[in-house]
Amino acid sequence: MSEIPATERTQLTRAKHKGRSDRDTVNAILDAALVGQLAWADDSGQPFVVPIAFARDGDRLLFHGSTGAGSLRQAAAGRPVCFSVTLLEGLVLARSAFESSMHYRSVNAFGTCRQLDGDEQTAALEIVTQRLLPGRAASLRPMTAKEVAATLVLELPLVEVSAKVSDAWPHDEAADLQWPVWAGVVPLQTKLGQPLAAPDLAAEFAALPTLLDPAALLPRAR
Amino acid sequence: MSEIPATERTQLTRAKHKGRSDRDTVNAILDAALVGQLAWADDSGQPFVVPIAFARDGDRLLFHGSTGAGSLRQAAAGRPVCFSVTLLEGLVLARSAFESSMHYRSVNAFGTCRQLDGDEQTAALEIVTQRLLPGRAASLRPMTAKEVAATLVLELPLVEVSAKVSDAWPHDEAADLQWPVWAGVVPLQTKLGQPLAAPDLAAEFAALPTLLDPAALLPRAR
Repeated sequence: MSEIPATERTQLTRAKHKGRSDRDTVNAILDAALVGQLAWADDSGQPFVVPIAFARDGDRLLFHGSTGAGSLRQAAAGRPVCFSVTLLEGLVLARSAFESSMHYRSVNAFGTCRQLDGDEQTAALEIVTQRLLPGRAASLRPMTAKEVAATLVLELPLVEVSAKVSDAWPHDEAADLQWPVWAGVVPLQTKLGQPLAAPDLAAEFAALPTLLDPAALLPRAR
Repeated sequence: MSEIPATERTQLTRAKHKGRSDRDTVNAILDAALVGQLAWADDSGQPFVVPIAFARDGDRLLFHGSTGAGSLRQAAAGRPVCFSVTLLEGLVLARSAFESSMHYRSVNAFGTCRQLDGDEQTAALEIVTQRLLPGRAASLRPMTAKEVAATLVLELPLVEVSAKVSDAWPHDEAADLQWPVWAGVVPLQTKLGQPLAAPDLAAEFAALPTLLDPAALLPRAR
């Protein structure tokens, strides 16, 4: 396992046993999420958070959005960012409210984004499409130069990054074990529902498969 | 519908048709989420984001955590925060990558937290327990004074708050409608899985119900 060096910003102040710094754990969390939260702060110290789709490509994250998107422009301008991903995976039902908690896996990445242009930008958009629409990319109408020009693409190197994993059973004190209530974990699962055809989908295409690959879209690998 | 006045910070810079400022929409999103992201920034302008469970109580949000939790302490000290909630609800599969997107509902709240003490703190913890463990609160071992003392409770008034809702069909250009690919929306759904009993659950309690009320935990009201 490849360890990622800790920094002052990635160090946990408490519950340190939940901290993870190996790249495999970080990558598995990033690859199981479609959306994370990108935060930046203005000159007054006011933070702003925007939910954003992303793709991991090796040791970098890729973001894309409209060239008019305010938060992306702030990140492109070099504001320090924190990108955060949270997978909520279960409810820990203990005998007391105090010991009740949640199963989750999360990642925080700190750094500065770089805007990609030219071939780098086009290649990154292909990677993002493969990640967010796995199975469909080859069947879509190809990107146009106009669409690429309207899209801001940012790269965040995964250098200062760490994970937290909460996956334990409830740990009630011995005195509470005879409290007459069920205790354990109730998993939370994200699933794809029944596809809903667009109203303007031509009749001859209605029976086509969605092509989406659920295993690539929502991997549950632990 | 009660409208929440916009401020410079809650104003969208683009896709303004997705903006929502009525309290019913904001509340429905907050009530359908168990976890959000709390962001603050240090003196250098570096943002930090922490995933955190929360409860809405009328026109305020309640957060709780260990008195040792770094981010909660920063918020308690008066740092301006942004609290963000994202519900990812579907994939919009268009004929092009450019028009493909996601269904989501999100809320951003800006402001400064206030730490609650004494009766306010205890009452808030009861509200948080009712919200995060609906159905179970009355059956749990009661909170102790020591547990209350170890818990930091913060209130964020829902004053400067706004929502975004993305719930439309793909809107491909007319020229793309004959592209031979399925198009529509694939819903993403969060469900409770099969409860897993704690290894230390006494045999005589194993057949008890979890008591969790899924409809109160994960309301899907639109």
